[in-house]
Amino acid sequence: MKKVGIAGYGSTKFSKNKIPIEELLVESTKQVFQTTSNLSQNLIDGVIVSTNDNSKYLGAIVSERSGIKPKISHTIEHLCSSGTNAVISAFSYIASGLADVILVTGGDVIGNPGQVLEWDQSRGELNHPIYWGSIFTKAYKRKFNTTEEELAIVSAKNHKQAIDNPNSYSHEPYTISQIMNSKIITDDLRILDCSYPCSGSASVLLASENIIKKFTDTPIWISGIGQKTNSASFTKNDLLNLSSTISASNDAYAMSNTNSNDIDVAEVHDAFSVCELMAVKDLGLTEKSSSTEFIRNLFNTGDRKINPRGGLIGAGHPLGATGISQIIEITQQLQNNAEKRQIPNVKKGLVHNMSAAATSSTVLILES
Amino acid sequence: MKKVGIAGYGSTKFSKNKIPIEELLVESTKQVFQTTSNLSQNLIDGVIVSTNDNSKYLGAIVSERSGIKPKISHTIEHLCSSGTNAVISAFSYIASGLADVILVTGGDVIGNPGQVLEWDQSRGELNHPIYWGSIFTKAYKRKFNTTEEELAIVSAKNHKQAIDNPNSYSHEPYTISQIMNSKIITDDLRILDCSYPCSGSASVLLASENIIKKFTDTPIWISGIGQKTNSASFTKNDLLNLSSTISASNDAYAMSNTNSNDIDVAEVHDAFSVCELMAVKDLGLTEKSSSTEFIRNLFNTGDRKINPRGGLIGAGHPLGATGISQIIEITQQLQNNAEKRQIPNVKKGLVHNMSAAATSSTVLILES
Repeated sequence: MKKVGIAGYGSTKFSKNKIPIEELLVESTKQVFQTTSNLSQNLIDGVIVSTNDNSKYLGAIVSERSGIKPKISHTIEHLCSSGTNAVISAFSYIASGLADVILVTGGDVIGNPGQVLEWDQSRGELNHPIYWGSIFTKAYKRKFNTTEEELAIVSAKNHKQAIDNPNSYSHEPYTISQIMNSKIITDDLRILDCSYPCSGSASVLLASENIIKKFTDTPIWISGIGQKTNSASFTKNDLLNLSSTISASNDAYAMSNTNSNDIDVAEVHDAFSVCELMAVKDLGLTEKSSSTEFIRNLFNTGDRKINPRGGLIGAGHPLGATGISQIIEITQQLQNNAEKRQIPNVKKGLVHNMSAAATSSTVLILES
Repeated sequence: MKKVGIAGYGSTKFSKNKIPIEELLVESTKQVFQTTSNLSQNLIDGVIVSTNDNSKYLGAIVSERSGIKPKISHTIEHLCSSGTNAVISAFSYIASGLADVILVTGGDVIGNPGQVLEWDQSRGELNHPIYWGSIFTKAYKRKFNTTEEELAIVSAKNHKQAIDNPNSYSHEPYTISQIMNSKIITDDLRILDCSYPCSGSASVLLASENIIKKFTDTPIWISGIGQKTNSASFTKNDLLNLSSTISASNDAYAMSNTNSNDIDVAEVHDAFSVCELMAVKDLGLTEKSSSTEFIRNLFNTGDRKINPRGGLIGAGHPLGATGISQIIEITQQLQNNAEKRQIPNVKKGLVHNMSAAATSSTVLILES
């Protein structure tokens, strides 16, 4: 299998503006061209779009508007995991030898499908992600005696970290008290425990080891990949474990010959506060019962190890862009290029993305 | 690069019934399980859905309803090319070593996006495929002095061949005269020059050389792959050539070390009659100026070399299923298993699929 790395990236700002999907995708693609050395349109073998937007043929449209005439081109959708899954698809085209350079561009427009899931209208009120977020929160609080303050710390930390991310949706320094007193959504969730669906786009350029040095002196390699789609019905899952995350992370760690202790920085899928607590546990980044202590300690010490760009809660969640933005953040951390967000001495990073109550998960290990 | 082959397949009947997309996909997947030896759910590493339907998370839904818990899962869309492009994506996962067995299931529901293309409402009346079909027809007739009878022969041949395809939308033996007198759609197109958008699903199982013999004694290998997305604006293309098809077929022939003279059977994308005449020319299956003579000769002699299952015109065109159905037909021909449609001594077959006025094309070479 050929080595595949990140050769460049670009992003729009995340916002509540209703911008056409094509505009968003073309804008983050333009950023890739502006910031990647020696990149010209004719070097790109494939353009893969990641989105939940209903527009069709976006691979061709983005290509034309960006002056690219790719061989490989199509759109990929898998709800919130679309971005990471599109990157893994691009990885496979390159690792197989079918391509050398692929642009993955992802995005969504505020209000796009994914807020109300079309795939199970039969669940009545449960057809909105807030309801699984609420059920997960209730189960977690009961099992670990977690307080509302401990949940609010996740959101306070991520909002605080988002302030230093220029592309964030939110730059508000919400306090624990403000979060605990924000609007009640369900018995177990307040509005500031939830990520924001919003408009935004992010793009990454993947390249094979044959050509990547043409574009960057500091390529970041994708050394581990794990994916799992367990079931579309979250009610069958254990409400206390992200079982697809456990499976995906085991595969990713094995492929990259990495132990969870080796991870210096991680982007995890905090669709709701409780998800970050569950993810750090199920990725093996902390002991089973100590997620709240782990996160509280990061918050108190200002350690940005988890979700340095602000997570979905702070940075916003334009579904098709999210996984790609996570990858960009880890790339910047590994390149020692994350400005105010930089964590010292980063050698290995992890990206964790998931869809629909963790009915599916994706984990990537990146290293320099 | 690992060898990748077709290990099994399944299909629904194509019809005008409005069947939910999940039902269609699950039905053709069920056929794969019923007809493939030793296939069990736990052997499947990936489930890729090909569709233009707006439903989300179909990879997870089809997996759950089929009892599969895949690692890789997502939906792929690239208008009419979705099916072939999803198969190439599956090929790359296997060829790279990330997977050994992938199910690709494709389908669409009558009325799904693709009839009126959302990607360019700015073209006014030209936003329906009929208009590019009409413009291509006018240009072709002018260049090659093609008569209405010669165009009607394409449709008569494909409708005739579709009669022996049990999954066809149409089983009507339309005569040349009936076609020439069918309802006028534009100056250059009659209704029987057009393919039928309809409901249907088709699935293929792809497997690596490591495991394929577990499932079949007669694996069919994908030996050549070519893809090209030229431009989303067909007005920039030469109206007399499918330039993306020429590019894609050159790549596919080169990869499989095949000459166009070696092709014994081909499925080509006859969205309109003129497309078959253009495709056989641009794939090198006949001389530049002799497409009409070539097709007339096949019709007169009953030679099924081009579109043995009836093409899109005869079999129907459920967008996300079409490319997969084409691959199934060539697989059956190579396995000497195509019943009444069987062509003698088939050694190499070709699949040609395209989207939106050939603004993109895909070509595959298959062999036993």
